[in-house]
Amino acid sequence: MDAINRPAIDIVRTTAELRQRVKAWHKADQIVGVVPTMGALHDGHLSLVDRSLATTDRTIVTLFVNPKQFGPHEDFGVYPRDEERDRELLATRGVHLLFAPDLDEMYPRDFMTSVSVSGLGDILDGSCRPGFFNGVSTVVAKLFMQCQADAAFFGEKDYQQVRVVRCMARDLAIPTDIVACPTIRGPGGLALSSRNAYLSSDELARATALHAELKALASDVRAGGNTEACEARATSRLLNAGFAKVDYMVARDADTLQAWMPGRPLRALGAAFMGRTRLIDNVAG
Amino acid sequence: MDAINRPAIDIVRTTAELRQRVKAWHKADQIVGVVPTMGALHDGHLSLVDRSLATTDRTIVTLFVNPKQFGPHEDFGVYPRDEERDRELLATRGVHLLFAPDLDEMYPRDFMTSVSVSGLGDILDGSCRPGFFNGVSTVVAKLFMQCQADAAFFGEKDYQQVRVVRCMARDLAIPTDIVACPTIRGPGGLALSSRNAYLSSDELARATALHAELKALASDVRAGGNTEACEARATSRLLNAGFAKVDYMVARDADTLQAWMPGRPLRALGAAFMGRTRLIDNVAG
Repeated sequence: MDAINRPAIDIVRTTAELRQRVKAWHKADQIVGVVPTMGALHDGHLSLVDRSLATTDRTIVTLFVNPKQFGPHEDFGVYPRDEERDRELLATRGVHLLFAPDLDEMYPRDFMTSVSVSGLGDILDGSCRPGFFNGVSTVVAKLFMQCQADAAFFGEKDYQQVRVVRCMARDLAIPTDIVACPTIRGPGGLALSSRNAYLSSDELARATALHAELKALASDVRAGGNTEACEARATSRLLNAGFAKVDYMVARDADTLQAWMPGRPLRALGAAFMGRTRLIDNVAG
Repeated sequence: MDAINRPAIDIVRTTAELRQRVKAWHKADQIVGVVPTMGALHDGHLSLVDRSLATTDRTIVTLFVNPKQFGPHEDFGVYPRDEERDRELLATRGVHLLFAPDLDEMYPRDFMTSVSVSGLGDILDGSCRPGFFNGVSTVVAKLFMQCQADAAFFGEKDYQQVRVVRCMARDLAIPTDIVACPTIRGPGGLALSSRNAYLSSDELARATALHAELKALASDVRAGGNTEACEARATSRLLNAGFAKVDYMVARDADTLQAWMPGRPLRALGAAFMGRTRLIDNVAG
């Protein structure tokens, strides 16, 4: 496709302009969907985009690498960024608007507000990555206010994030429906993630153990195995498969993410390091 | 006025019904104002109501005694409540809708979300009443989401609260304008407050010293007096005037509520106990 015929996408960088656009859509009774992303788009993101395009009249994708959800020793500086490529992918897909605010638009110098979800936001990733879910809740609350969308699409790959965002939206009566969409997987079942770009081909192959061991963990617990013993076994198998460190491998209540009781929906969730790259995944049990 | 001709006011108790009503107003291009209150209405509240009625097309008053902004040893249990009287006052005024949710609608059992404003929310009343501004920010954020109003009216009597709410609304891009309205005062300059109902007539008379000493403090500091010395003098005068305890008497930067520098707008703020009743007030300098 040459430069002239390349599909275009509107890019908006300020809340004021975004609000004007969405207001006109709502005025015309159009349903608006939003897909919040940090860019470095892959087929997982695109599946959310497709879901929004299929079920709403206008789709906004937001692109903002949110510093508040990275710890001081995490990968904010090197997180993959390629706005031009993301823009082309979204234009080809038929997305109506890309909201890509800069840092000052999101967090002016005297920004002081924080949104947090206690309980749900303090365990698992919230405990391994202190401040992570506060960063997520704060930026998502702001993106929701900026976009005023009727529905927001999130991937179940970040299962705890979906639970936290859903809880926040319900608690604060935010008028945006939270739609959770299935994880998209690559070869061997590896969940797609922008961070997979950090992995060598050898690491990519070994990383598939995370999904496999989560499936095994869920079915072992479902079959009546002692939860803690099953979790410990899954952890040691992951280490044997070449993971450097396991943050957690757990089978939990799918709603509360607290201890699972027979009869309740179950979710197995894991976080582990392949080399220096932290991967997460989860499966229904 | 007999019972039959008494003006009526619509009362809504759920977010779902409120949203439907506001959506219809917005659909008809009507500007919606909201006045958040904890009830026990006085002329201060009614001045906010009048301002909303004068500048918007539809006025919502919210009535919710918010437990999250009371400390464990504060007056939540005895805070004055008289919904019927409040309702009649608002109906007579011409308010279009009263939103009076119950506790479960605002804080269902598994409510976990908190909105906080660091810095601004941690000093003065935030330091004397730990958790107070978190409670305010959380409930106001939720009320804003429920009401979807274009403008919200707050009294400057709660000056720090207005600053905190304004900061939160800006930080989170909440599409509601925050309008600050002047404090309404009774005899001797005493700022109207629902808590004045706790005072005896003798205490009411002595409580006017708070406003008088704040005016003196502001003008002394403006005139070049040493801020700390002026604050100490104002404090001891309040104690001499019959206040039991002074939480703070300060002259601060009117925007940041941090230390005041010559050339900047000044605000004198005070909080002190008349008997067991905590009163606050503030004046421009």
